[in-house]
Amino acid sequence: MASPAHARPHAEDPTQSAYRSAHRAATADFGWDGVELRPYKEDERALYKAITRQILFSDPNMAGELRYFEVAPGGFSTLERHEHMHAVLILRGSGDCLVGDEVKSLGTRDLVTVPPMAWHQFRATKGEPLGFLCMVNAERDRPQLPSADDVARLRQNPAIAAFLDDKP
Amino acid sequence: MASPAHARPHAEDPTQSAYRSAHRAATADFGWDGVELRPYKEDERALYKAITRQILFSDPNMAGELRYFEVAPGGFSTLERHEHMHAVLILRGSGDCLVGDEVKSLGTRDLVTVPPMAWHQFRATKGEPLGFLCMVNAERDRPQLPSADDVARLRQNPAIAAFLDDKP
Repeated sequence: MASPAHARPHAEDPTQSAYRSAHRAATADFGWDGVELRPYKEDERALYKAITRQILFSDPNMAGELRYFEVAPGGFSTLERHEHMHAVLILRGSGDCLVGDEVKSLGTRDLVTVPPMAWHQFRATKGEPLGFLCMVNAERDRPQLPSADDVARLRQNPAIAAFLDDKP
Repeated sequence: MASPAHARPHAEDPTQSAYRSAHRAATADFGWDGVELRPYKEDERALYKAITRQILFSDPNMAGELRYFEVAPGGFSTLERHEHMHAVLILRGSGDCLVGDEVKSLGTRDLVTVPPMAWHQFRATKGEPLGFLCMVNAERDRPQLPSADDVARLRQNPAIAAFLDDKP
């Protein structure tokens, strides 16, 4: 929710100023003081399930942004690709991911690099949340969604088909 | 240590290529497969104590870098400042930090923003390691060290003097 106007320390950009607070304490259940829990995406297409987003660092002086995504058990992120890279560290729980043509089992603190234009999706497949930090360039292109042909091609790999069908 | 030449998957830049591996599993005690544990800094001035550095993500396509620093109990990072910002998430343990003119007590997953030109130092003051992720711009200025006058000015604040003397 937006802050009331009188509470804005920097009237020129209240959204950015929140990230400049020197110290924001962790709260219970992987939240942070002053960090808004947001829906994963603004649109309402059913391309993802049970995932939230928190923007931890975003500042005009920084070329990167750091976000925290959390997928509830059984949930998943959008299957997509883009020119920009993702640098991911699993902060909570475990799950699986697709990156390019490989399905990987993920544990806490594992690192995942999503190279440019690699199809990718994160799934909380192991009965616990899958929470991950994701560093991206502040300036980045919009994600692309797969066509029916793209999905058919991915599904030719049995491991990817099982991943997409949530049957590991 | 440098890899032998014959082990380089990308001859043009062996240092960078390691960060492109899609999945690097966490190992025991906050290490990662394929991530080298490095000394904190290349020089040997006694400005820091008991701290290690691991570069988790660094890639020509990414404008940010993500590093993991770990301070052993009783250790500390260099007291310094610079134009570039630090975006910090405590990944392990607890401790204290100085940012600008404030000393903060830090717990696991807390967030710390170090604004441009703020004096800052991290200390593992609580008998356990203080491990933290730090996002920075890939292109950044070199840190500046405090002069004797700078330290004297900081020490005028009793909380900062106690912090620097490790007497919280």
